[in-house]
Amino acid sequence: MAYGLLNGKRGIISGALDEKSIAWKVALKAKEEGATFTLTNAPIAMRMGAIKQLAEQCDAEIIPADATSVEDLENLFTKSQEVLGGKVDFVLHSIGMSPNIRKGKAYTDLNYDWFKQSIDISALSFHKMLQTAYKLDAISEWGSVVALTYMAAQRTFPFYTDMADAKAVLESIARSFGYRYGKSHKVRVNTVSQSPTPTTAGGGIGGFDKFYDFADKTAPLGNATADQCADYVITLFSDLTRMVTMQNLFHDGGFSMTGISEDVMNLISKE
Amino acid sequence: MAYGLLNGKRGIISGALDEKSIAWKVALKAKEEGATFTLTNAPIAMRMGAIKQLAEQCDAEIIPADATSVEDLENLFTKSQEVLGGKVDFVLHSIGMSPNIRKGKAYTDLNYDWFKQSIDISALSFHKMLQTAYKLDAISEWGSVVALTYMAAQRTFPFYTDMADAKAVLESIARSFGYRYGKSHKVRVNTVSQSPTPTTAGGGIGGFDKFYDFADKTAPLGNATADQCADYVITLFSDLTRMVTMQNLFHDGGFSMTGISEDVMNLISKE
Amino acid sequence: MAYGLLNGKRGIISGALDEKSIAWKVALKAKEEGATFTLTNAPIAMRMGAIKQLAEQCDAEIIPADATSVEDLENLFTKSQEVLGGKVDFVLHSIGMSPNIRKGKAYTDLNYDWFKQSIDISALSFHKMLQTAYKLDAISEWGSVVALTYMAAQRTFPFYTDMADAKAVLESIARSFGYRYGKSHKVRVNTVSQSPTPTTAGGGIGGFDKFYDFADKTAPLGNATADQCADYVITLFSDLTRMVTMQNLFHDGGFSMTGISEDVMNLISKE
Amino acid sequence: MAYGLLNGKRGIISGALDEKSIAWKVALKAKEEGATFTLTNAPIAMRMGAIKQLAEQCDAEIIPADATSVEDLENLFTKSQEVLGGKVDFVLHSIGMSPNIRKGKAYTDLNYDWFKQSIDISALSFHKMLQTAYKLDAISEWGSVVALTYMAAQRTFPFYTDMADAKAVLESIARSFGYRYGKSHKVRVNTVSQSPTPTTAGGGIGGFDKFYDFADKTAPLGNATADQCADYVITLFSDLTRMVTMQNLFHDGGFSMTGISEDVMNLISKE
Repeated sequence: MAYGLLNGKRGIISGALDEKSIAWKVALKAKEEGATFTLTNAPIAMRMGAIKQLAEQCDAEIIPADATSVEDLENLFTKSQEVLGGKVDFVLHSIGMSPNIRKGKAYTDLNYDWFKQSIDISALSFHKMLQTAYKLDAISEWGSVVALTYMAAQRTFPFYTDMADAKAVLESIARSFGYRYGKSHKVRVNTVSQSPTPTTAGGGIGGFDKFYDFADKTAPLGNATADQCADYVITLFSDLTRMVTMQNLFHDGGFSMTGISEDVMNLISKE
Repeated sequence: MAYGLLNGKRGIISGALDEKSIAWKVALKAKEEGATFTLTNAPIAMRMGAIKQLAEQCDAEIIPADATSVEDLENLFTKSQEVLGGKVDFVLHSIGMSPNIRKGKAYTDLNYDWFKQSIDISALSFHKMLQTAYKLDAISEWGSVVALTYMAAQRTFPFYTDMADAKAVLESIARSFGYRYGKSHKVRVNTVSQSPTPTTAGGGIGGFDKFYDFADKTAPLGNATADQCADYVITLFSDLTRMVTMQNLFHDGGFSMTGISEDVMNLISKE
Repeated sequence: MAYGLLNGKRGIISGALDEKSIAWKVALKAKEEGATFTLTNAPIAMRMGAIKQLAEQCDAEIIPADATSVEDLENLFTKSQEVLGGKVDFVLHSIGMSPNIRKGKAYTDLNYDWFKQSIDISALSFHKMLQTAYKLDAISEWGSVVALTYMAAQRTFPFYTDMADAKAVLESIARSFGYRYGKSHKVRVNTVSQSPTPTTAGGGIGGFDKFYDFADKTAPLGNATADQCADYVITLFSDLTRMVTMQNLFHDGGFSMTGISEDVMNLISKE
Repeated sequence: MAYGLLNGKRGIISGALDEKSIAWKVALKAKEEGATFTLTNAPIAMRMGAIKQLAEQCDAEIIPADATSVEDLENLFTKSQEVLGGKVDFVLHSIGMSPNIRKGKAYTDLNYDWFKQSIDISALSFHKMLQTAYKLDAISEWGSVVALTYMAAQRTFPFYTDMADAKAVLESIARSFGYRYGKSHKVRVNTVSQSPTPTTAGGGIGGFDKFYDFADKTAPLGNATADQCADYVITLFSDLTRMVTMQNLFHDGGFSMTGISEDVMNLISKE
């Protein structure tokens, strides 16, 4: 079911690795809702990914960019405007990686070079995107920027280690830059804090399955899927949410506001 | 611009007093977006209000109800289902009144009978609506209930006196009932925390004008209007936000996340 | 180990039912730390309770007061000042009761008269205490008022039903009155959000045991005891925390900031 | 007035630059309360600072350490244990610096090398302290670690630029490490979010004076001083707050919970 919510809108979508990716679903939905957009990903991620298939489906050009490189991001915004025929109306940031998680380092034994990489790739990349767009004046008035995040920025989930800290910076950047970009260009910036989602990236985290179940049993509506997340992101890109900015928005079936659920209590009693 | 976001959906909208009301705007938007609905208000408010004009514009039936009366609410949900031809898909709660504010009682000199009335009218009415709907099984699966609130539930705004406490209960009820209704019927319940809005009700609060200016100067996007709030509420009634529940959502141009703005700093320096 | 933190301070402590009560422990600690104070409780609670024994131990006078009665509270503050020889420096509010919980009413089937009683006893009583003290000018400059609360005010715990809403009002009153009392008399007002505690009152809630275990397994330091809570409250009554006001302070071994613990994850995996 | 709250306790205090520093006040108070401790600061800061005078007053040894250097921190914890005669019971982290602020770079024009330095010095240093202590098992059971932070981590204050993001990481690290250190050694970790304080470091931020006034006019108790902050930190180092962990604690005279004050409203009306 499509509504034309993004008719005539131009955008940039990062982070579509494969068809499990939230960004992939956002691209499909954005297409359905009438948008045109470019796709971007790190050159490395693209080699592994199936992004070309998505690009064909969406009639979208791929512009590779290492999101830690300002030069690459300048190219991304400049080319995107050329390809799309004007300033962009929406941007999705869906980029995150922690070498410490990948290599199984405990939070009490972090490798600090890797910690800095986690921050650089997962959070500072968002500032670089915003600052590059700001300097190039590449986002239209009332444009909408969304980054995907996770509740580990508020509460501790042991398996998430330094990504928790990276997400905390990411959300802070959304507020900090949202203030400036709102003031100067009426561009809004928000983060969506999504349920644990069995993407190729997320699923790789140790303990993910157990936690996925716990979250699903806690949230009264269960875990939100990648498809549902895409639906929600579309509303944030639309003109109907123009005054929502600097917010961290939970899209999680109610998990964040549930202290304990009856299902989890039953689980304990069986013990 | 209409998208058909609420095509085929049935609803109940409370609190449309006159054309400045947020509920009034929600009704117009919901109509545009394809919904059918009933309108309701307290018998007293209706006498003063222009609700009949709205009802004609929206082709909507008016079902008077004192929101503190369970009997009236039973009638509201029963009749609404008859009139609309089925269970309702969305409900707007936009009801609030503090006799203490009306009669200028300071927060340190509250009349406690009036305090209880503030709670009863502004917050408990929301529980009564939800409980009545729940018992009558009057809301469809994946239905959406929204109540309007204000940030005084989180931080103190002196002129808001006991409405701050009433809004705190209202938001708590949204979480508490949202958990149960989500679990049992996949109904979601949220509150929207709106910028100060010059409605007939809101504008009556002493000091409103000054505060309106302060908020407008603080929020990077300025204060959100009633029209913009209606747009946002529509997204929450739509199928695109199904996994958002138990949340308090700020619709305020960024006010809530701004500690101080440059405009307010300039204002201080002129002192 | 005593430090003399409350040497020369006068106070009022409500809610000491029996030796499991947090208020009981606060009284013992306050005595040790050098304070003199009066004890108060509802006439009904006193008949059941062992408060006389506590009064002897603490050399404290008992002044019965129904905390929903302004007259009783006027008497409490007036008599306390007489007995103690001056204005009071600290007040503990530890009062809560939900007839809906006692009588096993589900949150989707609340009795509304009882709901109002929950609010009146558990939250409005706090406003009445503060307003009475304010009008009588019964609290010294830099005095400290603490009310005990629970995290159900922020997140849903199914078994807590309408006490969640009552605690939300209580915390709102702390902020709202804290602003005024701070401004006018430099009196600070805070709430302490304590771990589930096996008091006579708390333990009566259905599902308490299971939840107690869950919380204990979640919090990295385990659940905080009533004794530890008393220690913490003493610091808030002392002169060392004068600039802390309008806050809700979690005293819970880290529960509030833990999304999931490894112990809970293990529990799930055994399933 | 001293209570002996830290009798027999050993600690490490970082960040005492001169007598305006909060860390300086904490050192004096800790001494009064019976603690022995070492002082530390970056070699550069020490050259400029008056730390030797403080060391004499407190009978404390100075152990220079660049807080971004794990080696220096290893030396700090090892030497401190030697000098003090056992594991440390408390640690104060009061370290922050943003080259972007120093050199007047706008938040929309950040130098990213400097951004990384802000994070490294102001936030990652805290993780390094904790990880070093953890690996050396240098903190006693029930030890207490406190880092100083600022509310820009939650809401945007334009002049604070990238320190907002650094403080967001700092607070996240407190939660993340607090969980692990609590679980394994019952060590608690918290941040204190202090009023704007006219220290040599803080006062250097552009717009500080105006904001200081705004905060002072907003907070019902006015801004908290460095001395008052030291008092509060002492309570967090004491045995009376053992179950408080992973928290961000506002010590700000009520600023954080005040939406607008009457004083600020008057200021606007004069406009």
